[in-house]
Amino acid sequence: MGFHVDSEAGRLRRVILHRPDLELKRLTPSNKDALLFDDVLWVRRAREEHDGFADVLRDRGVEVHLFGDLLRESLDIPVARRLVLDRVFDEKEYGPLATEHLRAAFEELPAAELTEALVGGMTKREFLERHAEPTSVRFHVMDLDDFLLNPLPNHLFTRDTSAWIYDGVSINAMRWPARQRETVHFEAIYRHHPLFTGPEAGAFHHWSEGQHDYPSTIEGGDVLVIGRGAVLIGMSERTTPQAVEMLARGLFDAGSARTIVALDMPKRRAFMHLDTVMTMIDGDTFTQYAGLGMLRSYTIEPGSGPRELKVTDHPPEHMHRAVAAALGLDAIRVLTATQDVHAAEREQWDDGCNVLAVEPGVVVAYERNATTNTHLRRQGIEVIEIRGSELGRGRGGPRCMSCPVVRDPV
Amino acid sequence: MGFHVDSEAGRLRRVILHRPDLELKRLTPSNKDALLFDDVLWVRRAREEHDGFADVLRDRGVEVHLFGDLLRESLDIPVARRLVLDRVFDEKEYGPLATEHLRAAFEELPAAELTEALVGGMTKREFLERHAEPTSVRFHVMDLDDFLLNPLPNHLFTRDTSAWIYDGVSINAMRWPARQRETVHFEAIYRHHPLFTGPEAGAFHHWSEGQHDYPSTIEGGDVLVIGRGAVLIGMSERTTPQAVEMLARGLFDAGSARTIVALDMPKRRAFMHLDTVMTMIDGDTFTQYAGLGMLRSYTIEPGSGPRELKVTDHPPEHMHRAVAAALGLDAIRVLTATQDVHAAEREQWDDGCNVLAVEPGVVVAYERNATTNTHLRRQGIEVIEIRGSELGRGRGGPRCMSCPVVRDPV
Amino acid sequence: MGFHVDSEAGRLRRVILHRPDLELKRLTPSNKDALLFDDVLWVRRAREEHDGFADVLRDRGVEVHLFGDLLRESLDIPVARRLVLDRVFDEKEYGPLATEHLRAAFEELPAAELTEALVGGMTKREFLERHAEPTSVRFHVMDLDDFLLNPLPNHLFTRDTSAWIYDGVSINAMRWPARQRETVHFEAIYRHHPLFTGPEAGAFHHWSEGQHDYPSTIEGGDVLVIGRGAVLIGMSERTTPQAVEMLARGLFDAGSARTIVALDMPKRRAFMHLDTVMTMIDGDTFTQYAGLGMLRSYTIEPGSGPRELKVTDHPPEHMHRAVAAALGLDAIRVLTATQDVHAAEREQWDDGCNVLAVEPGVVVAYERNATTNTHLRRQGIEVIEIRGSELGRGRGGPRCMSCPVVRDPV
Amino acid sequence: MGFHVDSEAGRLRRVILHRPDLELKRLTPSNKDALLFDDVLWVRRAREEHDGFADVLRDRGVEVHLFGDLLRESLDIPVARRLVLDRVFDEKEYGPLATEHLRAAFEELPAAELTEALVGGMTKREFLERHAEPTSVRFHVMDLDDFLLNPLPNHLFTRDTSAWIYDGVSINAMRWPARQRETVHFEAIYRHHPLFTGPEAGAFHHWSEGQHDYPSTIEGGDVLVIGRGAVLIGMSERTTPQAVEMLARGLFDAGSARTIVALDMPKRRAFMHLDTVMTMIDGDTFTQYAGLGMLRSYTIEPGSGPRELKVTDHPPEHMHRAVAAALGLDAIRVLTATQDVHAAEREQWDDGCNVLAVEPGVVVAYERNATTNTHLRRQGIEVIEIRGSELGRGRGGPRCMSCPVVRDPV
Repeated sequence: MGFHVDSEAGRLRRVILHRPDLELKRLTPSNKDALLFDDVLWVRRAREEHDGFADVLRDRGVEVHLFGDLLRESLDIPVARRLVLDRVFDEKEYGPLATEHLRAAFEELPAAELTEALVGGMTKREFLERHAEPTSVRFHVMDLDDFLLNPLPNHLFTRDTSAWIYDGVSINAMRWPARQRETVHFEAIYRHHPLFTGPEAGAFHHWSEGQHDYPSTIEGGDVLVIGRGAVLIGMSERTTPQAVEMLARGLFDAGSARTIVALDMPKRRAFMHLDTVMTMIDGDTFTQYAGLGMLRSYTIEPGSGPRELKVTDHPPEHMHRAVAAALGLDAIRVLTATQDVHAAEREQWDDGCNVLAVEPGVVVAYERNATTNTHLRRQGIEVIEIRGSELGRGRGGPRCMSCPVVRDPV
Repeated sequence: MGFHVDSEAGRLRRVILHRPDLELKRLTPSNKDALLFDDVLWVRRAREEHDGFADVLRDRGVEVHLFGDLLRESLDIPVARRLVLDRVFDEKEYGPLATEHLRAAFEELPAAELTEALVGGMTKREFLERHAEPTSVRFHVMDLDDFLLNPLPNHLFTRDTSAWIYDGVSINAMRWPARQRETVHFEAIYRHHPLFTGPEAGAFHHWSEGQHDYPSTIEGGDVLVIGRGAVLIGMSERTTPQAVEMLARGLFDAGSARTIVALDMPKRRAFMHLDTVMTMIDGDTFTQYAGLGMLRSYTIEPGSGPRELKVTDHPPEHMHRAVAAALGLDAIRVLTATQDVHAAEREQWDDGCNVLAVEPGVVVAYERNATTNTHLRRQGIEVIEIRGSELGRGRGGPRCMSCPVVRDPV
Repeated sequence: MGFHVDSEAGRLRRVILHRPDLELKRLTPSNKDALLFDDVLWVRRAREEHDGFADVLRDRGVEVHLFGDLLRESLDIPVARRLVLDRVFDEKEYGPLATEHLRAAFEELPAAELTEALVGGMTKREFLERHAEPTSVRFHVMDLDDFLLNPLPNHLFTRDTSAWIYDGVSINAMRWPARQRETVHFEAIYRHHPLFTGPEAGAFHHWSEGQHDYPSTIEGGDVLVIGRGAVLIGMSERTTPQAVEMLARGLFDAGSARTIVALDMPKRRAFMHLDTVMTMIDGDTFTQYAGLGMLRSYTIEPGSGPRELKVTDHPPEHMHRAVAAALGLDAIRVLTATQDVHAAEREQWDDGCNVLAVEPGVVVAYERNATTNTHLRRQGIEVIEIRGSELGRGRGGPRCMSCPVVRDPV
Repeated sequence: MGFHVDSEAGRLRRVILHRPDLELKRLTPSNKDALLFDDVLWVRRAREEHDGFADVLRDRGVEVHLFGDLLRESLDIPVARRLVLDRVFDEKEYGPLATEHLRAAFEELPAAELTEALVGGMTKREFLERHAEPTSVRFHVMDLDDFLLNPLPNHLFTRDTSAWIYDGVSINAMRWPARQRETVHFEAIYRHHPLFTGPEAGAFHHWSEGQHDYPSTIEGGDVLVIGRGAVLIGMSERTTPQAVEMLARGLFDAGSARTIVALDMPKRRAFMHLDTVMTMIDGDTFTQYAGLGMLRSYTIEPGSGPRELKVTDHPPEHMHRAVAAALGLDAIRVLTATQDVHAAEREQWDDGCNVLAVEPGVVVAYERNATTNTHLRRQGIEVIEIRGSELGRGRGGPRCMSCPVVRDPV
């Protein structure tokens, strides 16, 4: 009962996914880079693939919540709707002449249409099909096909925008502008949706303050709740050390965790998040990309005084040892398929490591990563394959596309 | 009888395809840009998709020749093998100390293995597994995983490297280094493979001198044999006006064509070849990408004296008129689906225009381009859909992946 | 008496410059792009050139204030020092573990050293030469030569960070991270330095709220106070329409201006600010880069009701007419040297248009722009040449490097 | 007597320079990258700086030949003129319709004008001011301001296109298209100019075959004739190992050298040529950029049989030892100024290492590299400073801008 995520690989009970929709149809060769995608997707097929992913989870007894439903239901609640519209329709973005006009137009939309507009975006042309044009330089200078509201195709990756860590949630300040508007949607959901405010939700902590924390950014793809009171975090291009420190303080103050291991990752898109190169698949077992190498790490623990922290540095060669120590183990088991450097680079690109455990030793993976999947099976891991020819073009696999909200310890 | 291509949309009888293999497994996130690909492919799936494409053609009565077979069979002929090895193992590439050593090692390979190495490439590590290391600075400075022979993943696009135009073939000088070694393979095939030298092959012209023509480059994706003695050519990033002039002279001297219309295309990767934005699907009908717009064009015809040419400029708005005039028609029919600019850009990216006619009004297209395909059907065109989630990542559709060698007039 | 800027070309009386120092020595080939410079400068020579520029102004009777002096004197005032340190040492930037430690170390610095650190930056190595290392992941992960405080080389361009418009100043929210810390320095100066708070300063308006306005950014290089109650503003990559609207409302409410003409500029680095392609040199005369062309423009005037604005669109061909109308003139005079497109592009790059008027018809210009300077002289303009082989590498000329604080009407 | 270069630091007697002219005026912000420049130059000032450089050399008793004079005088010789025009006006470049027409127009130019056109380039507009337009698609598609003949601004760096090594010259195949046309100019000069064919020239070897050697490229900036029969070569982005092997064979066969040390340089623009990071300034003394580090090296010597070579690999830490051994010394002296990493990177960028020795221990250097120059002086080196605010924008210093043709041993 209540929401909590106690491990990476314990039985998964409830998860938030986002079913692909209009926002992905907005991707074009011209805008995909700014929207952080490497290619455009065939959305109808991507949705089929995603439905297959959700089915696999349901078959395993996981309750699937769809982000679109949660947002739509939240937007029927006046305070949540106000929270979102206040944040989106900001004079500093739309100017003093257009902001009220635009906000009023969106204010009157039914929740379903408002959800579609907020997530899928809206062009100036689409706006003008139903609404009058404001007297505004900011509005006039736009071309008809420019986006008045940008689409948010990265909502597909529900893993990043919020992350449950033990008995609380971190609603994250996102690194890049293309994702920053995602955060307020989760703020509205976690603060106002009945699922999270009702009596059965129980009390849970908020480990962060949403986009307000910027530039202290952190993204869920870098956060692994490895269990036994430990958390493993990748300090990547998107997750900053200051955010790790803030999270540590919050978790330790609440007594929800007792140690964090932070890895100093290369700051490159290829290593976008920790879970693109390393994930946990059992209580002591990880998959790891051959090309990751060993990284400097830092163990963070409560300090001697209140609100103090103790930081211990480890050289690269002790990375696995530091993770094992945080788990109270002598060693961890790291699985890396043997293959040539070119093939390994290909499978990492295709999210070979980005698997989602549904229970200890059972993971969901893209079928295309045949070498990695075969290797895992030979090591006794059960691998459930899903299609991903389209989904994978966003450079995210099953873990990226899922936000566990209830998961048991291993 | 004999090889000839008399139109773009007449009954297709024989075609050369290339079944994806090792060369595509070599693509990685790091090398894909240099190798002119936008993404890596799942090769096993790509091969299934390609087999599906070949099956569709065979079902329509088209005889399919596989490039890999043609090359392998050619390499069993000493003079062809010598032609290829002489060109590949050049002292200016491999240095005076290593060249003979390397060539000798490849010389002794059976044709099948040599074909795999020439097309799929070979790393230094792979070479050293079977052969001694030469005393050579050129060889020593390479890393073990560097390619001694680069892979040629663009062989997939058989359309470009050679192009049949009426009763002759243009074996093309390719624009970018990643494709230049492809040319000698087709030189070996067309000059020495029994299919093209046997009595039933008949005589055919050679319109070019292969890579020797560089930097006067031309690629088959820019060449449309629109019929009635006319040729439509896109002068793109890859196809130069000087190559068009040379081709014109050859065609006119032989009496094989009587007019060329050359389009002045934008020199951008998005408009890589003419057939990525415009193809012909019936005797007077074309598909065209909405974002192409109208282009300046030049009609080239035989001049008054021998080897002279007459050039007529047309302003952009007369582009379609110039094409119609070359065909002896009053007008041509141009089909462009109505959709917003973002959607149109997406379908062009996914090769929505890059269809292959198998007979007048019957085309093969990727299934993902639903809007374009539906539009064509509404206009009475029969559209045979094939899968292409993987194949399409190389930015090439059915036309790009096929080299007709026998096709009837419309 | 008091501070006010009533024109672009009236007699210039007082100006703020910034003498190049440590911050420019920090530029390297590796960091220059992130710091918005195209090349590294030889700082000793750049300083000589800058001294020459200041001398020319003093010779013309202009009182020169140096930004470094103003900041240092401000930092001796506790409230100003607190304002700056509060903004710089933010937990979201430095983390909860290091922020107080760092702030305390800087707090104790004498004003001169603090000024040097704030403007010139400080590496981790330099910090550790005098201070203990905090227990902080944020600090530990830095390399010794990483910047703990980034240098601010663009302080050289005092034009942009604050802009006087008639009887008030706009302290600007800057577009790019490399310049955002500049803003708080000017907030401290204008709010607390005796020069601006003393009795002789008189009252003046604040048209903005500093970096707090972000993302409603505006930069002074885009703002031309063309006189007679009119302002000409370029909406560029860095200056947003919403900021123009906000400024309009402030100016009109105060009765300080009665019309704004906003130009829709290309959003490209080559056209970084309006004053890199167009400046004013007399009451009705402008220089303009040949490659600018004509731009869409918008006239903004007070509306019928309180806080309302009236916006009138003009097509590109009416650009000069709209400016003339704002000035109450029939026409303006636009001077553009006749030269080929290549030469014109070169002189624009070298700030040929970026001249600073010191009185009507008398301008300061870089000597290297010989063609433009000769052309201006032939039209009766007096051109005072200064050296700029080094200074010009930052892509800014005499106008960019000066912030007038007192200037007469023409 | 005759032409020969026996060392890097012996008395310099004769040198080829190129005085900046029209070709540098052609540089614009738009084309500079393709032309391999980082910035545009003020040509009048650059010429003054260059004149200063030439004067310094003349003052030291060096005879200065200007490339422009040598080329002009060569073009008065019919066979040389034919050599150049045959190479430039190639049908594969200009097409069958325009080539003869263009060539005929240039054929009739006086040598001085032809020199200016070949080096400074010519636009279509300039051509049409004096000549009729050919009937040619290749010509029609050009815009009026496009270059019919590209300018060759890198002729400034006479060091690279040809390199004297002991008693012979290597006329080099250049790596990038922007410089490839330079080669034929030096072929014409060395093969046909009276200076090099007259009786006093003596016999000298040709170590290469000009652009014909492509892609076996080598550039003189990577070649240091370190004396005592040894040569030090950087294998850079532009100089290939195969070219080093070919040169080794030529030098050893002729008995002109007895050992080559080849360094495996990083393939990056910042380390464009060896002489941008390391030069020789006395018989056993080198300057070296702090950021270069130690490199893998290869000693190449004559092998046991005819035309055989012996190659010995050295690990990075033995780099200096390998150079010393080639010189028959126990050790070499390497001078590197002590400064922080940022400052060192700045001075390397400004050609701090790219000094030109005029006699042992006496070097010409840019004045802007104050730290490096002071360091050299403290070590007993005489440093003659020249201005280079403009010249240095092409990323080349005194060594890059000079081609010694007669130099004594140390």
